Amino acid sequence: MQDVDYARYDRIRAVTWTGQSLRLIDQRLLPMQQLWTTCSTAAEVAAAIQNLTVRGAPAIGISAAYGVVLAAQAAAGADGVVSAAALAEPIATLAASRPTAVNLFWALARMQRVLGSAASVARLEEEAVAIEREDLAANRHMGQLGASLIAKGSGVLTHCNTGSLATAGFGTALGVIRAAYAEGRVAAVFNTETRPWGQGTRLTAWELLEDGIPAKLIADSAAAHLMKTGQVQWVIVGADRIARNGDTANKIGTYQLAIAARHHGVKFMVVAPSSTVDLSMASGEHIEIELREARELLEAGGQRIAANGVQTWNPVFDVTPGALIDAIITEQGVFKAPFFA
Amino acid sequence: MQDVDYARYDRIRAVTWTGQSLRLIDQRLLPMQQLWTTCSTAAEVAAAIQNLTVRGAPAIGISAAYGVVLAAQAAAGADGVVSAAALAEPIATLAASRPTAVNLFWALARMQRVLGSAASVARLEEEAVAIEREDLAANRHMGQLGASLIAKGSGVLTHCNTGSLATAGFGTALGVIRAAYAEGRVAAVFNTETRPWGQGTRLTAWELLEDGIPAKLIADSAAAHLMKTGQVQWVIVGADRIARNGDTANKIGTYQLAIAARHHGVKFMVVAPSSTVDLSMASGEHIEIELREARELLEAGGQRIAANGVQTWNPVFDVTPGALIDAIITEQGVFKAPFFA
Repeated sequence: MQDVDYARYDRIRAVTWTGQSLRLIDQRLLPMQQLWTTCSTAAEVAAAIQNLTVRGAPAIGISAAYGVVLAAQAAAGADGVVSAAALAEPIATLAASRPTAVNLFWALARMQRVLGSAASVARLEEEAVAIEREDLAANRHMGQLGASLIAKGSGVLTHCNTGSLATAGFGTALGVIRAAYAEGRVAAVFNTETRPWGQGTRLTAWELLEDGIPAKLIADSAAAHLMKTGQVQWVIVGADRIARNGDTANKIGTYQLAIAARHHGVKFMVVAPSSTVDLSMASGEHIEIELREARELLEAGGQRIAANGVQTWNPVFDVTPGALIDAIITEQGVFKAPFFA
Repeated sequence: MQDVDYARYDRIRAVTWTGQSLRLIDQRLLPMQQLWTTCSTAAEVAAAIQNLTVRGAPAIGISAAYGVVLAAQAAAGADGVVSAAALAEPIATLAASRPTAVNLFWALARMQRVLGSAASVARLEEEAVAIEREDLAANRHMGQLGASLIAKGSGVLTHCNTGSLATAGFGTALGVIRAAYAEGRVAAVFNTETRPWGQGTRLTAWELLEDGIPAKLIADSAAAHLMKTGQVQWVIVGADRIARNGDTANKIGTYQLAIAARHHGVKFMVVAPSSTVDLSMASGEHIEIELREARELLEAGGQRIAANGVQTWNPVFDVTPGALIDAIITEQGVFKAPFFA
């Protein structure tokens, strides 16, 4: 295992805590515009999560934790202490911002444990900072764990965006690709567009370009054809929620990639911090799948492209059965079936 | 089998021959703008095929045949007769317009058989008209053949555009869906976006809406998740070239759908006129796959969405092995493995 030059990869930060506000790079505008937006209230953070200014399961969790701190700052008395009752509503608002990523609920639960019936703002802030720092450390560690599975000369395919923009930095699945590339294991990187929102086209392709990692963008539909050409040995993706049996909720299309990978004997790796593992769920059967607005399919570049009246079905996550997954990497290690059961 | 009210479905015509020119609805602008363009020379027809003003394997073949007529009109002497030598260059230009769809080459070969060493313009025009009329008749017949395989209450999923816009009228795969819907067999229709060009979003969704057939547009990546919900019993697609063993070149993503369909026990039907079957090819292994420009992936609605410098891999067709296909419908019947071997 070689040392990874992390400084090379930490130039983009999606989430920055200033002490009084949360600065978010607006991921809806990337990469063509780099605009930071400032959230000063928990409601603003919840709106930013809901409207995808910030996205990516770990980044959502971190943002929500800081949202609790902003609510605490607003509600605290002169003694700097805030009660659980005063934070109930802002926490509920944050929890309602998106349904699928468990990291959101995990981060809020962690803040609530610190809060108890009342806590100092300083203690809450310390916890949010810890959540962010631990995420970055976990990503670096997962990068090395995942990279160790990739044979020299492999081609890899990733889906959605799981890089610095989706996390506290370095990334989950993209962190593994970064580490594997740094270790000289990766011969070719492909990334999907990731319709309908284009996380791959806009975010992942940009992160890879910024890093100087040669990569090719493909249509989501081209993945199986790519696998057939033999250019890919691993599909590497992140996760929004993982059940005990390894069933993994992730960006729509992940399941389709896993089926195609198995069909071609291509290996399939999921990379996510242990906060993504939902031990309360035996299987992925009951994971709530977020449906988003029709507009994501009906417009391109802000212009209507489908006829008026066209109906849509727009689930933005799906569940990949653990049976199609070769390895799940968390900061706690490399897990194979039966995973966390 | 019920009678199908064809008048209901033949309101859109992609290709219209005026006697002196070929009028094409510009499919790059649909459905938001309905603009007809007029081709007066074979070179203009070749350019329209190349730049996707007209697309769809059968419509390309029909357009190319009329392109030969335009060239013949320009080159004919006072006696209305044209020599093969005079048409060699325009035919070569038409043949070079797109590489994957065999219908293009089939239509040109058919025109050349009529041409021999010399032929009258009138005879060539008669042949092009016959190619167009036979295509429409084939589509109506295939519609009924394919529909007969679909059990009442089925959900169907289609990819790309195979309707009136892709053919002389009614369509191939979409013709089967139209016939099956008319016969009361179809409970639900889903159609993919079909990235990168959006034939599904722009063309198929529009055709279905015009027909009053309830349908839902999905991201290409959502197909496997849809199949898992049990809402789809058949995937029905067209073809650009079919080898003797059933291997089928079609729009990128078809192969991925076929793998997902087999994984879920969903049946897979290919619908194409017999002119799409390339009996010179034993398997699909050597079918040339067209790569198109990066711009299709890097822009949305004419606006750049990926960072400058992003590289792409943009194959626009793939080959689905005959082994993943349950039935191929041509106007000559329903074919099952070993298909045309």
